[in-house]
Amino acid sequence: MKALVYHGPGQKAWEEVPNPAIKDPTDAIVKVEATTICGTDLHILKGDVPAVTDGRILGHEGVGVVTEVGSGCKNVKVGDRVIISCISKCGTCDYCKAGLPSHCKTLGGIGWIFGHLIDGTQAEYVRVPYADNGLIPLPEGVSAEAGTMLSDILPTGYEIGVLNGAVKAGDVVAVIGAGPVGLAAIMTASTAGASAVIAVDTNKFRLDQSRDFGATETLEVSSGQDVAAALRELSSDGLGVDVAIEAVGLPGTFGTALESVRPGGHVANVGVHGESVQFPIERHWINNLTITTGLVNAITAPELLEDIKAGTIAPEKFITHHFTFDQFDEAYNTFTNAAEQEALKVIITQ
Amino acid sequence: MKALVYHGPGQKAWEEVPNPAIKDPTDAIVKVEATTICGTDLHILKGDVPAVTDGRILGHEGVGVVTEVGSGCKNVKVGDRVIISCISKCGTCDYCKAGLPSHCKTLGGIGWIFGHLIDGTQAEYVRVPYADNGLIPLPEGVSAEAGTMLSDILPTGYEIGVLNGAVKAGDVVAVIGAGPVGLAAIMTASTAGASAVIAVDTNKFRLDQSRDFGATETLEVSSGQDVAAALRELSSDGLGVDVAIEAVGLPGTFGTALESVRPGGHVANVGVHGESVQFPIERHWINNLTITTGLVNAITAPELLEDIKAGTIAPEKFITHHFTFDQFDEAYNTFTNAAEQEALKVIITQ
Repeated sequence: MKALVYHGPGQKAWEEVPNPAIKDPTDAIVKVEATTICGTDLHILKGDVPAVTDGRILGHEGVGVVTEVGSGCKNVKVGDRVIISCISKCGTCDYCKAGLPSHCKTLGGIGWIFGHLIDGTQAEYVRVPYADNGLIPLPEGVSAEAGTMLSDILPTGYEIGVLNGAVKAGDVVAVIGAGPVGLAAIMTASTAGASAVIAVDTNKFRLDQSRDFGATETLEVSSGQDVAAALRELSSDGLGVDVAIEAVGLPGTFGTALESVRPGGHVANVGVHGESVQFPIERHWINNLTITTGLVNAITAPELLEDIKAGTIAPEKFITHHFTFDQFDEAYNTFTNAAEQEALKVIITQ
Repeated sequence: MKALVYHGPGQKAWEEVPNPAIKDPTDAIVKVEATTICGTDLHILKGDVPAVTDGRILGHEGVGVVTEVGSGCKNVKVGDRVIISCISKCGTCDYCKAGLPSHCKTLGGIGWIFGHLIDGTQAEYVRVPYADNGLIPLPEGVSAEAGTMLSDILPTGYEIGVLNGAVKAGDVVAVIGAGPVGLAAIMTASTAGASAVIAVDTNKFRLDQSRDFGATETLEVSSGQDVAAALRELSSDGLGVDVAIEAVGLPGTFGTALESVRPGGHVANVGVHGESVQFPIERHWINNLTITTGLVNAITAPELLEDIKAGTIAPEKFITHHFTFDQFDEAYNTFTNAAEQEALKVIITQ
C-alpha cells in the first residue's frame, strides 16, 4: 500500500510500504476512506515530537471501512464503516474506566498512539489496536468529512474546551484563537447553551468564519491591545466572562484567558504550549478560579454524532479544501499556511 | 464596650469604643462569647491589607448571642446563640445565588468584610449585616469552641481544599502544609472518603497533630528534598496523588502540589499567596489537570455542623490555647509564634 511516511524533521514521503497486518486478537485493519491533517502533525514534521521516529506513518484522524478483524473483536465487523478515534484505549485500566483514556496505562500512559508510537491514518490501510474501543460506527447519512472531524478536533474543542470549562446555559464564553480547535469549541459551546460566544483572533477570515460556527460576537485583536480588558467590557457587568477557552498555546493568550474571566470563572486550556507561563496567583488566589488542561479523551464522539444527526452541528463546515491521497504534499502546504490560504481543515480522500 | 482596635501596621489595642448599633433593618447585634485569630489578622497587622484602616475592630470569626435585631430580620431572634460566618452576603445577587457569596456584588465583590471593611468580632459586641444570612444557629450540644471553627477555618479547608479538589472515595490526597487550614482540609478529607491523606510539613508537632485530625501518613520535609517525587512514590502506582491541597501560599509549595498529582489530578490552592508562580504548562497541558483557587464561601457550615453532631469531626481539636478578652496581646503573641508555641488555633472568650 501507499502511506505518508515521516523521515525526520522536515522530511515526509507518500511511498510504498508493507500492508499492515493483525498483530493482536483485538486489532482490526481499516481501509482509510478520508483523513485530515492536525496541528500536531505539523509539530511532528518540525521535529518537536521526538517520540516520532524515521519510518513512522503519520496521522491520527480518519474514516474508513473495516477489512479484517482479529479473533478477539466482539463488536466491530468486516465491512463496518467507522470513525477512527485519535485515542486508543485498552478499556480496562483505571484511566480508561475513569473516562480518561488519554492516559491509558496499558498503552504506557498515552492514548494518542496513531502517527506517534504506531503507524497512523495517512495511509491506504491502518492497523487499529483495541478496535472494539477505538472504532465508532459511522451512521448512515453522516458524511466521511463530518466523521473525520469526530476523530479528534470536535471532541477536543468540546471536551477540553466546553466540558472542562463547565459551560452552562446563559454563560458568556470567550474562545481565544479561532483556528480549527477554537472553532470546534465555538461550535459546541453554542449547543451547550452559552448565551454569548466571543471569538477572539487576529485573523479576519477566521473571525468571519466563526460566526457560521456559532460565535455571537467577534473581537479582532490588534497589536498592543489589552484583550482581557476588552473581553471584561463585553461581559454583562464588566466583571469578566464566565469561561475563557485558550485555543492558541502561547503565554500571552493564556494570560489573556486568565485575566478575562470573572471571579468564579473557568479557564479551559486547549492550546499546546511550548513554554512555561506566569500565574499571578497573588491576585487570583481569592478569585475562585478553575483552570483546566488536557489531552482529548474522544469519549464524546457518540454524543457529538447525535448532535450531527439532529442537525445541531454540521462539522462539514470545517472542510475548506479537498485533496486526494496523491496530493498529500499540496494538502500539507495548504494546512501549513492555513491563515494565508484561508484554510480551516483539509480533507484527503482515496 | 471594649474591642481590639487596629491602629496601623504593628499597632493594636484592647480599648473602649462605642457600642455598635443597628444601621440597616437587616442588621443584628451579637454579644461575642468566643472568637479566635486567623492568619489573615496577622497579615493585617503587618500592613499587608491596606483596605484595613486605623480604627478598625479586628476579627471575622466567633460565636455569640443575639442581643438586638433590625426590623427586617425574619429568622434571627434576640437570644439566639449563633455562629458568625466570616462571609457576609446579601443573598440576592447572582454571586450569592450561585453559592459564591465570597464575591457578593452588593458588598462590592467581597463577602469578607468583618475586621476588613467593617468592624469585626474581636470585641464584646459586633454588628452583623444581613444577619439572617450570616448567622447560623448553634445547636444544643455544640460548643462555642467548635462553633467558632465553623466561622472560617473548617469551611475553608473543606470548600477550597476538599470540595474544590473534588476529593472522592478512594482518593490519595496530599495536604501540603499542616497548619490550621491544612488540618481543616485533613479533617474533612477523611470524611469525604479519601483512602489516604498524607500530611506534609517541616514541623514535627504539626505532623504529629495531623494524625489526630485524620492523616493516614505524614511526610516531614527536609531542606532540599524533592517533595513532589516523594509524594508520587507514596501513590499506589507511582504516577502521583489524586488531589494535592496547597495550604501554605508559597511558589515552592504550589510547585510541589502541581508536580505531585497524577494525570487527571486536582490541585486545590487554599494558601494565600504574595507573589506570582510559574506554571510549567509546556509539560502540563497534556495532563488533564484541574487547578482551583478561592476564598471560602462558608456555605457548608450547616453540613459541617451535622458532621459535628454525628461525631465524625471534632473541631475542638484545633484549640490548643485558651485566653480571655483581657488577654488579646498574649493570644496574638501565641498565634504569631504558633510553630514554636505548638499552637494550632487559640480561643478567646469573654
